[in-house]
Amino acid sequence: MKIVKSIHDMQNVIKQEKINGKIIGFVPTMGYLHDGHLSLIKRAREESEIVVVSIFVNPLQFGPNEDFDRYPRDFERDKKLAEEAGADVLFCPETTDMYPDKPVVTVSVNRRTDALCGKSRIGHFDGVATVLTKLFNIISPDKAFFGLKDAQQVAVVKGLVDDFNFPVTIIGCETKREQDGLAMSSRNMYLTEEERKEAHHLYQSLQKAQDWLLDCDSGETEEKMIKYLEEQTDGIVEYCKILSYPELLPPETDDEKLIIAVSVRFSKARLIDNVIIDNIFEKKGSGEEKCSVH
Amino acid sequence: MKIVKSIHDMQNVIKQEKINGKIIGFVPTMGYLHDGHLSLIKRAREESEIVVVSIFVNPLQFGPNEDFDRYPRDFERDKKLAEEAGADVLFCPETTDMYPDKPVVTVSVNRRTDALCGKSRIGHFDGVATVLTKLFNIISPDKAFFGLKDAQQVAVVKGLVDDFNFPVTIIGCETKREQDGLAMSSRNMYLTEEERKEAHHLYQSLQKAQDWLLDCDSGETEEKMIKYLEEQTDGIVEYCKILSYPELLPPETDDEKLIIAVSVRFSKARLIDNVIIDNIFEKKGSGEEKCSVH
Repeated sequence: MKIVKSIHDMQNVIKQEKINGKIIGFVPTMGYLHDGHLSLIKRAREESEIVVVSIFVNPLQFGPNEDFDRYPRDFERDKKLAEEAGADVLFCPETTDMYPDKPVVTVSVNRRTDALCGKSRIGHFDGVATVLTKLFNIISPDKAFFGLKDAQQVAVVKGLVDDFNFPVTIIGCETKREQDGLAMSSRNMYLTEEERKEAHHLYQSLQKAQDWLLDCDSGETEEKMIKYLEEQTDGIVEYCKILSYPELLPPETDDEKLIIAVSVRFSKARLIDNVIIDNIFEKKGSGEEKCSVH
Repeated sequence: MKIVKSIHDMQNVIKQEKINGKIIGFVPTMGYLHDGHLSLIKRAREESEIVVVSIFVNPLQFGPNEDFDRYPRDFERDKKLAEEAGADVLFCPETTDMYPDKPVVTVSVNRRTDALCGKSRIGHFDGVATVLTKLFNIISPDKAFFGLKDAQQVAVVKGLVDDFNFPVTIIGCETKREQDGLAMSSRNMYLTEEERKEAHHLYQSLQKAQDWLLDCDSGETEEKMIKYLEEQTDGIVEYCKILSYPELLPPETDDEKLIIAVSVRFSKARLIDNVIIDNIFEKKGSGEEKCSVH
């Protein structure tokens, strides 16, 4: 596995592979790799000829009170894991190379952000879209692989690629879970032992919501999820939401897909999870029906 | 010369040329080609193996009261001229293909815009940067050629390419002029006969400014330019400015380059012109010296 630090070197490596007609698969990460990342790398390995993994903790996507400084980092471990999972190139640029100066241009995300995490993490998706614009230009991937745990991110990235005509296919990959259902995340390590035991209830609430939706409208279902999570965990429920996907608007009968999404803040970790389902209201007729069970 | 209308077809054409290892030269235009454009195409012809010219009148870079609807268009003439100048591919997408929907993402230009044309044309450079991001992704040029008449545009585009790591070299080409010095522009056709006779004074004012700067500070020189243009033309002087280039800030002794820029509004045409010079204040010591001649 080749380790590349300089943007210029990375572009030269890719230029040569493109002349060779190779299919480039790309997995962007912020490092501290877990099985979720590794499943993306393995998927990229299956579906491309050259697999590039990037590790870059992007300051632009962290708010002033977020965990940029204490975001977990372990390069030696990541290097080993990425190579074992099948990466050909590990791209790990320095912050000063990625952002040498106050930027002249940034990407603004105008839709799909006024909901879920975007609502509280102001500027987060602008930062994500900006760094991915840079990474796509540096790595010129044919395919890029993203975990659907960050479903809002995938929605924004699909908008980015469509609107800016990046010649790259975005592949959203199913969330990898621990045995009890907890979605894998680098931030799970912040959980106390007690919180870790409770954390699987996020996924439980998503499972239950799918049942509740058979009888209730989306608002009622959201309320039931909040109640369930408040009873089952000591975390603070940030949101439980049912929205259209990928537009993230209140569900309408003609939406193809819906997302059920949840965020709970524990003492030192803010966890998110979601499921994306076929639009159940299509069959029922409307998302505004009243719940039959109180 | 190949004519390509679909974004998808254009990306496929380029993909093949890239596999062939060809150097792609790109000249983005809004059509109604004049000798200025043709000189860019000829330059691209000399310095690249595949020359792509785009014609797209980009609605995003026109303000609500600007001339989008009446911007001159003549595709048959453009086609002939582009081919004669050496274009291999003419890319002319439909507006509905370039902007099928309200965009999820756009590019925001955060610097180099609070001066010259950017000051009055709010959002103009965001529109320019957004469409160029799209075009660069569609055409993947190795080199892109821009006229320095739009020097602020070149400054923004260089920022765009640097910040977003587009693997493209931006080549700013000298302004082509009519015999009397008037900078070539598609908008010159809007001038009345009388205005056309006066219009060369924009360039004259830039020439005189370089002399005045030997004795005066930048503020004094700007005032002299305004006075000169008000005397010599019936147009309304929008600005006469001396700034650092490409940052477009008040000149400092350590700036390498300065721009002297002018904009005059005639009855139906707003003309701009500029010269970029080595920093004269470097030798003089400061741009704040008082003018010796009053």
